[in-house]
Amino acid sequence: MNNNINIAVVGLGQIGNYLVNELNKKKRDIEIKTGKKIKLIAISAKNINKKRKFKINKKIFYKNPLNIFKIKKVDILFECIGLSDGISKKIVESALKNKIHVITPNKALISKHGDYLSKLAEKNKVNLEFEASVAGGIPILRTIKEGLATNKINKVYGILNGTCNYILSEMESSKDSFSNVLKRAQKLGYAEPGNPKLDLNGYDAFAKIRILSSLSFNKNISKSKCLMEGIENIEFKDIDIADQLNFRIKLLGITELINNKLFERVHPCLVKKNSYIANVSGVMNAVILHGEPVGESVLQGEGAGPGATSSALMSDLLSILRGNIKFPFGVSSKKRKHISSYNLSNYSNSLYLRFEVNDKPGVLSQITQSLAKRNISVERLIQIPDHKNKKASIIIITHKTNESDANKCLKSFNVNRNILKAPTRIRLF
Amino acid sequence: MNNNINIAVVGLGQIGNYLVNELNKKKRDIEIKTGKKIKLIAISAKNINKKRKFKINKKIFYKNPLNIFKIKKVDILFECIGLSDGISKKIVESALKNKIHVITPNKALISKHGDYLSKLAEKNKVNLEFEASVAGGIPILRTIKEGLATNKINKVYGILNGTCNYILSEMESSKDSFSNVLKRAQKLGYAEPGNPKLDLNGYDAFAKIRILSSLSFNKNISKSKCLMEGIENIEFKDIDIADQLNFRIKLLGITELINNKLFERVHPCLVKKNSYIANVSGVMNAVILHGEPVGESVLQGEGAGPGATSSALMSDLLSILRGNIKFPFGVSSKKRKHISSYNLSNYSNSLYLRFEVNDKPGVLSQITQSLAKRNISVERLIQIPDHKNKKASIIIITHKTNESDANKCLKSFNVNRNILKAPTRIRLF
Repeated sequence: MNNNINIAVVGLGQIGNYLVNELNKKKRDIEIKTGKKIKLIAISAKNINKKRKFKINKKIFYKNPLNIFKIKKVDILFECIGLSDGISKKIVESALKNKIHVITPNKALISKHGDYLSKLAEKNKVNLEFEASVAGGIPILRTIKEGLATNKINKVYGILNGTCNYILSEMESSKDSFSNVLKRAQKLGYAEPGNPKLDLNGYDAFAKIRILSSLSFNKNISKSKCLMEGIENIEFKDIDIADQLNFRIKLLGITELINNKLFERVHPCLVKKNSYIANVSGVMNAVILHGEPVGESVLQGEGAGPGATSSALMSDLLSILRGNIKFPFGVSSKKRKHISSYNLSNYSNSLYLRFEVNDKPGVLSQITQSLAKRNISVERLIQIPDHKNKKASIIIITHKTNESDANKCLKSFNVNRNILKAPTRIRLF
Repeated sequence: MNNNINIAVVGLGQIGNYLVNELNKKKRDIEIKTGKKIKLIAISAKNINKKRKFKINKKIFYKNPLNIFKIKKVDILFECIGLSDGISKKIVESALKNKIHVITPNKALISKHGDYLSKLAEKNKVNLEFEASVAGGIPILRTIKEGLATNKINKVYGILNGTCNYILSEMESSKDSFSNVLKRAQKLGYAEPGNPKLDLNGYDAFAKIRILSSLSFNKNISKSKCLMEGIENIEFKDIDIADQLNFRIKLLGITELINNKLFERVHPCLVKKNSYIANVSGVMNAVILHGEPVGESVLQGEGAGPGATSSALMSDLLSILRGNIKFPFGVSSKKRKHISSYNLSNYSNSLYLRFEVNDKPGVLSQITQSLAKRNISVERLIQIPDHKNKKASIIIITHKTNESDANKCLKSFNVNRNILKAPTRIRLF
């Protein structure tokens, strides 16, 4: 690698914008640490005229990013567009084929096309770095690939979506409804103003879990969604009851090997209030990792926002500038294993179930009978009356319950007219 | 670097022993990840006949480690002897001069001779890696050098000594005395059976703080001890009173830049019970880091023990095998700055003071008068009588107090015969 490094940044949203600023600010520091002089020679965005906090240098602006390679010699490209397909995939593909190193925070792209793109990078002997795609400012991918390199990892879990964590924390502290808190999160820029669905339904955390699994277990990226639930159905009532039972509700992403099968899941969990993970609040992310021989490792930091994301993007840049050409997933694509998925119907877990019912005689007995029929054993039951409306909430904490038994049982309640809506199920962690 | 890598391990104590086992167990994994075949070709220890859990391969055993290089071609040497000088320094020096990469968990060596040894490594174009020297299984050095590479770090602090943290946690949970808990820690192997002084007096944590400062602030290793206190004078009484005031006592190592001056310190702190750091208990270590733009990062893991230490030693090995030849301190020795020390007498902080006094009229007033004379203002005062012995404990929490005022004031109590021993001072965090 030459000592003068040409850099292109494609996508000038919140992250691209912050990154360009960081690249300018840290030029000298980067030279001290790596001996390389970086130069921003191309930027690209959909719309040059969009209102931005900084002035665009029109001399290096390209409307079509694919034209950059035709005109300029680029060494390293930052893809900051987002989304798994379309122009972001095209530009990354094209860069790698042109032997240009690529750095991206795009978890959707990596969790969908990471296997293909890493092969392309290896074939062209360039880096594909994506530290920023998981848990923003926490250098978790580098820690797995390098800091804990020879550990046998068997479980990784954590809070991987700052939006959901903010909403759940804020619902608890302000005693407010999901929809009100979501509106506040959107105002504060913590949730997408238009369509926050991918954060709320667990998809975002699941993409990150897929990347974490691949690195932790030396495997290809999984294609199937084992178990994915979001926080859309969590009501303040659930948070309040959990609180009384000494629990807190957190959206966790979990990946582990069970008898050499891969069990990836994202769903809300009831976690004990005095546990570490219960006390990670607001937009913070945290990752907990079990390895042999290291034991339990915990990493916590800002999970999103342009500052944290830029920190990760810059660490990727330094890794490339230091000449650490590495396999994107730590080992050669040929050496990455296929691990088949754990059969979800074998999974057993304690459950929190909330039923909204008409306060009529016999309803409780109908519920407990149905549970008993499916071998679901009740550990705790709370009935909260709503006398005014002649309704009640029935909350049940079950003993360990088989997943498919629970599914069948919950389905059976659909036909019961005294059960006013589909019961809420939250798994205990 | 050749594909066949010869490895020597010098020092076969708890760590060396565990490491040799790991090297054998992870051979295949290392080959998959790096393409290199490692071979253990030399081991050395003071005494071949010492009782060990494993059988020593006499064919590769050397009584004098300095002879290894004369007979064998070594690529990478693990120094697992310990201590800052003597044979451990000699063997590291000799290896580097012979263009052999060195990996060591020896914080005493690195914090004393790290500047000199890193220059030697750079001159000979080999690596000197010491991830295991700070916070065992937490890959904190690699995180600072790489994962957070371009962040401007201004403060790093944490629990860096598992022995002290174990003793303080155990005193609280078992309501037992320092000396009893120390004995238990020694039995469990958490504290040196012979001389635990270097752990207890803060020296061990200070060595780690020096290494952390060097990496975080791109500076040479400091020579002076700014502020170092251990936990030897903490009594159960202090832990109990702290508990009542909603605090916990932790030995913290802290390094920060204050107006471009370096302020390194290790001392017991009163930390709020609901803070993160107060809840890191037992032999765990934790490091908290403030960087720009990443914000606050937290890393927690096992701080000591052969498993955690081996995890770090092996990550160093992989870094070398992957060909990541790097400056030991992240930047070239020539580019590392000198930063002068913060003047401790400018430091102000709230203090917890405990006086053991004769329960006589006027004693309290003597204490408060002396405090007032030095501008030390009392925020809270608790007097706990010991009627049987006609004594009392007086506990004072002060407002922010200048360090040199506090020193002078505390000294002045020496001549007061009603104050039965030197007052205990613990700083609030």
